Amino acid sequence: MMKTSRILAATAAAVLAATPLLAQQGPEAQAMKARQGMMQFYAMNLGVLGAMAKGERDYDAAAASAAAGNIAGVAQLNMSMLWPQGSDDMSLDGSRALPAIWENMADVGAKSAAMREAALAMQAAAGTDLASLQAAMGALGGACGDCHKAYRTPQ
Amino acid sequence: MMKTSRILAATAAAVLAATPLLAQQGPEAQAMKARQGMMQFYAMNLGVLGAMAKGERDYDAAAASAAAGNIAGVAQLNMSMLWPQGSDDMSLDGSRALPAIWENMADVGAKSAAMREAALAMQAAAGTDLASLQAAMGALGGACGDCHKAYRTPQ
Repeated sequence: MMKTSRILAATAAAVLAATPLLAQQGPEAQAMKARQGMMQFYAMNLGVLGAMAKGERDYDAAAASAAAGNIAGVAQLNMSMLWPQGSDDMSLDGSRALPAIWENMADVGAKSAAMREAALAMQAAAGTDLASLQAAMGALGGACGDCHKAYRTPQ
Repeated sequence: MMKTSRILAATAAAVLAATPLLAQQGPEAQAMKARQGMMQFYAMNLGVLGAMAKGERDYDAAAASAAAGNIAGVAQLNMSMLWPQGSDDMSLDGSRALPAIWENMADVGAKSAAMREAALAMQAAAGTDLASLQAAMGALGGACGDCHKAYRTPQ
């Protein structure tokens, strides 16, 4: 029993130690890591704006502007290299990207452009006042959701 | 023996299944995921420029401009929320950020500003011609390395 415990512990440790290395192998996994980090950054900044919009956090023009500027800044990057073939959820552990993305690139591009437009509108609005921020929130959240609903696996 | 193998397999599977969830728990881990994704995106774009600079890839003004624009774009984001206390390598699994970061914020800010300046210089140079790209490479790579040498654990 003691021996089994030691083997179990060693196995768990080996798996844990190997996981980060495995996750970094291959260009598809590297691209996924970068894009998931971008999505996380979007989410954190949208969280700041959302908390203000819902009154869970006091409106702060500087913080709102910074968050909206971050979202607009990322939205204007060229992230095409982050979506290589073979990085969909059927091909890559940890991916939630549906294969439909690569079959509907024109639609993905249109949804991406709509998100960029909503992000720029939020950037213009967020520092003005709370009402302007709230007014811009629907379009931005909607644009995020449009792509996620169509092209991301449910959690 | 069969039973032990099954337990080992189950343990390994459980650890693997739990790892992504654990890694996503907590604001520190979320911030780390976002910043590591940003660093990965930097690295991918710097890789494009580096391959051209070294002649491993044909110079392509459009691709060079896109890569340099991505680096400059990320460098201009406000990433302060990605570096919370408690996300250093002593506090957080998977982090390579040395605690010294939080004890030397003025120096981190100065190194960050130098990197931003080098990124903007690269953005201005990359689409001009190969010689201009090559001339801008040293300062940009140097600025990345300055921060990594001081504030990141060796791999």
